[in-house]
Amino acid sequence: MLCASWGRPSSARECGVSVAGGTRPDRRGVCGWWADELCAMSYLVPEPAHGAAHTARLLISCPDGPGIVAAVSQFLFEQGANIVSSDQYSTHPEQGTFFMRTAFYLPKLEHARLSFEAEFSELAKRFGMDWRIFYARERKRVALMASREDHCLLDLLWRHRRGELEMEVVCVISNHEQLRGEVEKLGVAYHHIPVTPDSKPRAEAQALQLISGRAELVVLARYMQILSAEFLQRVGCPVINIHHSFLPAFAGAQPYLRAYERGVKLIGATAHYATDEVDAGPIIEQDVQRVGHGYTVEDLERVGRDLERLVLARAVRSHLDDRVLVHQGRTIVF
Amino acid sequence: MLCASWGRPSSARECGVSVAGGTRPDRRGVCGWWADELCAMSYLVPEPAHGAAHTARLLISCPDGPGIVAAVSQFLFEQGANIVSSDQYSTHPEQGTFFMRTAFYLPKLEHARLSFEAEFSELAKRFGMDWRIFYARERKRVALMASREDHCLLDLLWRHRRGELEMEVVCVISNHEQLRGEVEKLGVAYHHIPVTPDSKPRAEAQALQLISGRAELVVLARYMQILSAEFLQRVGCPVINIHHSFLPAFAGAQPYLRAYERGVKLIGATAHYATDEVDAGPIIEQDVQRVGHGYTVEDLERVGRDLERLVLARAVRSHLDDRVLVHQGRTIVF
Amino acid sequence: MLCASWGRPSSARECGVSVAGGTRPDRRGVCGWWADELCAMSYLVPEPAHGAAHTARLLISCPDGPGIVAAVSQFLFEQGANIVSSDQYSTHPEQGTFFMRTAFYLPKLEHARLSFEAEFSELAKRFGMDWRIFYARERKRVALMASREDHCLLDLLWRHRRGELEMEVVCVISNHEQLRGEVEKLGVAYHHIPVTPDSKPRAEAQALQLISGRAELVVLARYMQILSAEFLQRVGCPVINIHHSFLPAFAGAQPYLRAYERGVKLIGATAHYATDEVDAGPIIEQDVQRVGHGYTVEDLERVGRDLERLVLARAVRSHLDDRVLVHQGRTIVF
Amino acid sequence: MLCASWGRPSSARECGVSVAGGTRPDRRGVCGWWADELCAMSYLVPEPAHGAAHTARLLISCPDGPGIVAAVSQFLFEQGANIVSSDQYSTHPEQGTFFMRTAFYLPKLEHARLSFEAEFSELAKRFGMDWRIFYARERKRVALMASREDHCLLDLLWRHRRGELEMEVVCVISNHEQLRGEVEKLGVAYHHIPVTPDSKPRAEAQALQLISGRAELVVLARYMQILSAEFLQRVGCPVINIHHSFLPAFAGAQPYLRAYERGVKLIGATAHYATDEVDAGPIIEQDVQRVGHGYTVEDLERVGRDLERLVLARAVRSHLDDRVLVHQGRTIVF
Repeated sequence: MLCASWGRPSSARECGVSVAGGTRPDRRGVCGWWADELCAMSYLVPEPAHGAAHTARLLISCPDGPGIVAAVSQFLFEQGANIVSSDQYSTHPEQGTFFMRTAFYLPKLEHARLSFEAEFSELAKRFGMDWRIFYARERKRVALMASREDHCLLDLLWRHRRGELEMEVVCVISNHEQLRGEVEKLGVAYHHIPVTPDSKPRAEAQALQLISGRAELVVLARYMQILSAEFLQRVGCPVINIHHSFLPAFAGAQPYLRAYERGVKLIGATAHYATDEVDAGPIIEQDVQRVGHGYTVEDLERVGRDLERLVLARAVRSHLDDRVLVHQGRTIVF
Repeated sequence: MLCASWGRPSSARECGVSVAGGTRPDRRGVCGWWADELCAMSYLVPEPAHGAAHTARLLISCPDGPGIVAAVSQFLFEQGANIVSSDQYSTHPEQGTFFMRTAFYLPKLEHARLSFEAEFSELAKRFGMDWRIFYARERKRVALMASREDHCLLDLLWRHRRGELEMEVVCVISNHEQLRGEVEKLGVAYHHIPVTPDSKPRAEAQALQLISGRAELVVLARYMQILSAEFLQRVGCPVINIHHSFLPAFAGAQPYLRAYERGVKLIGATAHYATDEVDAGPIIEQDVQRVGHGYTVEDLERVGRDLERLVLARAVRSHLDDRVLVHQGRTIVF
Repeated sequence: MLCASWGRPSSARECGVSVAGGTRPDRRGVCGWWADELCAMSYLVPEPAHGAAHTARLLISCPDGPGIVAAVSQFLFEQGANIVSSDQYSTHPEQGTFFMRTAFYLPKLEHARLSFEAEFSELAKRFGMDWRIFYARERKRVALMASREDHCLLDLLWRHRRGELEMEVVCVISNHEQLRGEVEKLGVAYHHIPVTPDSKPRAEAQALQLISGRAELVVLARYMQILSAEFLQRVGCPVINIHHSFLPAFAGAQPYLRAYERGVKLIGATAHYATDEVDAGPIIEQDVQRVGHGYTVEDLERVGRDLERLVLARAVRSHLDDRVLVHQGRTIVF
Repeated sequence: MLCASWGRPSSARECGVSVAGGTRPDRRGVCGWWADELCAMSYLVPEPAHGAAHTARLLISCPDGPGIVAAVSQFLFEQGANIVSSDQYSTHPEQGTFFMRTAFYLPKLEHARLSFEAEFSELAKRFGMDWRIFYARERKRVALMASREDHCLLDLLWRHRRGELEMEVVCVISNHEQLRGEVEKLGVAYHHIPVTPDSKPRAEAQALQLISGRAELVVLARYMQILSAEFLQRVGCPVINIHHSFLPAFAGAQPYLRAYERGVKLIGATAHYATDEVDAGPIIEQDVQRVGHGYTVEDLERVGRDLERLVLARAVRSHLDDRVLVHQGRTIVF
């Protein structure tokens, strides 16, 4: 959340609104009486150009030990970087694994990338670090897969348009034709690849051709086919799935029916990275809502749709902001 | 929620799926292996025609006293009605006001309406009842008003298309032009009525002409103008508003900014009936989400958009299902 | 919740406070300036004697069909009863099972019990009803079982003392000695029955002797032994258990460790009726709380203790208020 | 939460249970079949002695600028400290105020305190830092104040006994006599200081004598008297209050009655630092629960009691762990 806090729009200041403390000389007087005008002016303008272009996120994992934070922050200081946010986690203080995400702002970063990375890799070697750096200006290319349910897919596309998700949508792939109209209206390419038990290998090959090398993330927005282990191996990028239950409860097919039959008092949704084992991958985000004995399976599905939309969007956003690391089947979400 | 439980789709039975207990002879075997096919078949077909056409909801309020439930249920029984759900509430068991909502199924209801209502009005007189009856087949006509924010408006329209909201959308009225494209794409009439301090009375008169006599409900889906007392009086139907705070906290303008400044740890949204007093009308639905010190005002707005969508949709759905009664500034939501 | 709404304390009226609308002539002026004095006076006095003594709750289940509500409410009206609250549920409107809970107030109920029940059993026969009647003045006798964790046990005893739980505590049985001091201080009998693999049958027989015929409910307040099917059969009353996970996830031993290892983002607690199959009985109540990657197993246990206390207390309260029916492995909680 | 993650009990390892990944050679086989035995063995032993004795928490605030994190982490590295957790926040990336909390483990810390602090104060001067250091082994001395409601007070005392709250309870002060028995049973001194409008100044002076110089924190566990500005000034330590509403809604007296009258659909509780202005101090923690039209004021109070207990305990715990900083009326809770 922190990294969004800078680059406050200048129009807010022109209004005399200073959010983080400070003076606020008659907000209503300056901006006129229209609540909506002010609201739109103050907060909905995009981040100024000097922001994203110079921001990067550094993700690190290595054996824990003394001096890591000091070395990294000293390095960034010497490079002239200003740390915007920094989070760390260690599985154990003495013999654990250490994880760190640091977002920093570095003027002229675009010119200094190569030397920055070369020098950091020296430091990384010393501590035995796995590390990656992401540049905020390089928005991730994302392929979306869906079947016939539109709620997760349209919600992601709407959030993308609103500016909530820093991504480029490469295409939508569906095993059904239904959602083409909606998707194409938004200017996004739609590929219909039908899947039957016999055609599945061929269908997956087709999908791979559209995705491999073109997308850095695949999001299964209620794609109701199980992807093969081979597909997951060959796709070459993370795959986020939304499962319509509170995993590990009701893994597998028809979770709402089974939730109904079991009589649970809360239903949930789970966004996770897809792995070979169905519905067993690292969990990124979950949420639940209270239900009662009077809810039919249809009611559970309706309530669940809202959960699925929210949970998937939060997980995708965390991934796009480079906040998620995976360690021994669990996620660290900074 | 209860009234949705009958009229289970016949296709579920063909699949051998019997939800409320009973046999379920190899669900997967019968329906094939496609999770999405089965899912769609079983639960997403609309209610069969014999359902809505014959269902009505009776809303009653009267001074509490013995024999009311007995009289109403006896009356319905004699008419041949089958009670689908029934809820009641009394403000006090001895000298309170009694409220009741009964949904019932009555074959041939469409032919018997006049005699049914005439006979019930006799009973109602005996107990001094205020009462109304609503027929499920007569979907309420709804006018939507918005400004520039699209999230509440598009969400309502999407839910309408999904079949989640039993309404007919009469038109969208906005004081801005921005949302026309999205709305018209969905086949809904869009009226742009600009509002300035000077033009407000004229603008409200224009809106009244579009609404009065045509709509049975007005929904303010982030309409950022304050409607005058005169408008509310003349519009002749309930008006539901979504306020972007947990009322009564942060009534008035810019609730997210004020929530930020006050440092609350949860932000909320409130759907309420609009009354003369701004943000003081009877609350229909509220919800909140946890936030932290690192959230900027923009973050609060983003999180808040999701709350606003959900809370407004739930309130509108409760109203459309005739579940909301108002008594002394508070709602009873059955 | 409804049945608590009547029997408002007379002291509130003396203060001039009329809650459900009506006049309130300067609340502060009459009662003086002490917030705590007024608060205590107005709301914390026990229900007046004329309340509980005359209240009963009628629970019904039978094949659904027309005329049930009419017949029951007509019967109550003729008996002179005033319905305080009434809830109903049907698994299917045409061929389902119908459930109903009606709380009513009947002056002189204690004298009329036998005739009331005899007459109602006639009506019940007509509709093929299973039915039971509970009299609010007859508080249920409850045996509590615990091991070494004190949080659930002490919380139930504290709520009992506060008047939140309408029960009589028969005794506490534990397979450990630790909690004796705390329990006996509250004037409750404490029986230490150690359990080893060999002594288990004998230990269960001892417990049965303390419970059978004396308790109408057994609550397992973190009792960490699995009760045998024979025990459950012979105990002759419902047994409520609290499981420290969001069932059906993490049934069985060490749910917090397994939740940690799976990396879930929410942990939960589940109160359910104990059945032969461990952790598979009908769920009465559940709740969850958000956790993150930084939570150790100890943290999950700490957070979980709060969930366990709340969820168990709510379930026990619902049971004591005769709000829970069981049908095909699911609960209906009115 | 992070700082609790180290110092894992050695007994867990003896069981062959390695929580953070690693091998786990048949957990059930090694530890025997008793779920409760294992559970207690693995997780409920206290932190080993080498933990708390050597841990400190450094809190910093200063004008934001480059090099702060680098300087602090370099300093800690040179001192031989191992950072256990570190959190930071800046109100603005360029001209904001910077906040940091770092927990670190330093062998022989007890011997090196003076030199450590002297050297750090040099660094602090360079950056214009406000800073404080807290040593985990020095548990904060806390005075509790209550009136007649026991739920918040007993809950804090129970958590203290469970080891959830790192504090020493200096005494309990109440303006009523009721809770003496419960408190003294736990070995805590109980002072009854009655308060009337006339005696208030004298009563506050008495309380100050018991608190000043002896307590580092005062917790108002439903103390129903408003403390004077003079008291707050002279007490010389932070005062945490629990307010029984979702502030800023329903500040002042009788929030549950007012919540009832307003018809809110959620009720809440708020823990905040007490300031001169009643119920307007910096908010530390809040939570809410859903309620409905059928809840009486008594029901709201009962539900609210659970909220109050939880919210106050979380706030006190955060304060005791030195996680809370205050800036311009808002808290930063790391």
